[in-house]
Amino acid sequence: MAELGADNIAQGMRYATAGGKRLRGFLALESAALFDVPQARALYAAGAVECLHAYSLVHDDLPAMDDDDLRRGQPTVHKKWDEATAVLVGDALQSFAFELLGREGAGTAEERVALVASLAKASGAQGMVLGQAQDIAAETAGRALTLEEITELQANKTGRLIEWPALSGAILGGADPEPLRRYAEAIGLAFQIADDVLDVEGDAATAGKALRKDAEAGKATFVSLLGLAEAKARAAALVQEATAALRPYGDRAQTLCDLAHYIVARDK
Amino acid sequence: MAELGADNIAQGMRYATAGGKRLRGFLALESAALFDVPQARALYAAGAVECLHAYSLVHDDLPAMDDDDLRRGQPTVHKKWDEATAVLVGDALQSFAFELLGREGAGTAEERVALVASLAKASGAQGMVLGQAQDIAAETAGRALTLEEITELQANKTGRLIEWPALSGAILGGADPEPLRRYAEAIGLAFQIADDVLDVEGDAATAGKALRKDAEAGKATFVSLLGLAEAKARAAALVQEATAALRPYGDRAQTLCDLAHYIVARDK
Repeated sequence: MAELGADNIAQGMRYATAGGKRLRGFLALESAALFDVPQARALYAAGAVECLHAYSLVHDDLPAMDDDDLRRGQPTVHKKWDEATAVLVGDALQSFAFELLGREGAGTAEERVALVASLAKASGAQGMVLGQAQDIAAETAGRALTLEEITELQANKTGRLIEWPALSGAILGGADPEPLRRYAEAIGLAFQIADDVLDVEGDAATAGKALRKDAEAGKATFVSLLGLAEAKARAAALVQEATAALRPYGDRAQTLCDLAHYIVARDK
Repeated sequence: MAELGADNIAQGMRYATAGGKRLRGFLALESAALFDVPQARALYAAGAVECLHAYSLVHDDLPAMDDDDLRRGQPTVHKKWDEATAVLVGDALQSFAFELLGREGAGTAEERVALVASLAKASGAQGMVLGQAQDIAAETAGRALTLEEITELQANKTGRLIEWPALSGAILGGADPEPLRRYAEAIGLAFQIADDVLDVEGDAATAGKALRKDAEAGKATFVSLLGLAEAKARAAALVQEATAALRPYGDRAQTLCDLAHYIVARDK
């Protein structure tokens, strides 16, 4: 029934996963490289987390959510197609993330099921979705959030899906995940602070999305709570924390160190 | 941050999974019972498919999709809360389905990963979501669907998520899934024909949802294509097919036989 337009879903899935920084997929590959996990195996986790992330953006951009017209410099899925397609494309991308982790190449059965269980938890009602709900609730709370509340909200909304790929290599390598957990926590928070700085200082054309939305909406951000200078100082301190956490891996973690620096220096 | 209303998600998840026929969960338990799989283990698959099904209803009821106000005799999630909550509740229910299958009690690692992979496939862009997209595309196609097209659409939209629990017991029991696949295919189609009959003959208060929507929308259904009498005759023939497929299991499959009969006799 392709003539009935049902292949919109496959097209929308490809469209929604094209472009972007691929930060989460990159983390999965670099995490795996630390433990000599073959890249061909880690690509399943990398693909899964990129699909999961893309689904969250497609749904977050919906009119009922953040109502964004532009994503990665292109019309959002509900603008290019329609809302129903965007709902279904997001749904299908979530299914596909778990389908990828279920495939034989993704690891042993034990490893695959550990990846599935941890990704489901990181993305669900106690992870990313909770963060999105907290974000929406904050908009209608009638008061600005405290620094503690924003930190918790962002740890859920953004942090959990940065932590998962960072730890995925340790799962596949049978290694202690603790250093990577500390690394991921630091870069996750630094990432969000940098996003808030970018929202104030950035260029919309370079960023590929609308900026200054938070300030216009009177939304509390790390910049509004800390001021620009202090926010930047915190982000820089978090980068130091992140690189310190990687010390056990020595030179092998150089790319992950570089990534921590990139996260606060990026312009998109 | 419960005071910020973020616990709507957990409440919405409970709300959306309350009530209903629990047909799919029941199928998972009965399928497992055929192969002496402990019920405690099969409950994970049963819970997972009910969460998956509930998520599909919450998203399908959204204004951009089927735009329904009533489900199981109660306001739909977006009516009771709002659209953003409904999007997120559906998303979280999908995550939770896979989280359940990832838990230790759900089976060996091999069994769990087989359940995850097959559920992801049955629910995603080549399964249920495809069926929903075909259903939406059919509404704007400018022509009525053929019998072949409706059969394919319904096999995707409804059939795949009836087949999955019916086969889940065979996965957990290490048994040949073929007889159950034939059973599930027959009851899946019978279920949808019965739904179309119910839409014409049923009582909205008993059914707990709006009826006559398809006829009012001029939508092709099994009843509009076959006529009421022939639609009923087909459903009855499918019930015979379904029970015949269960013969290898003898008396152990009595409840599944009864279920096939119930599917076409139900009033909601």
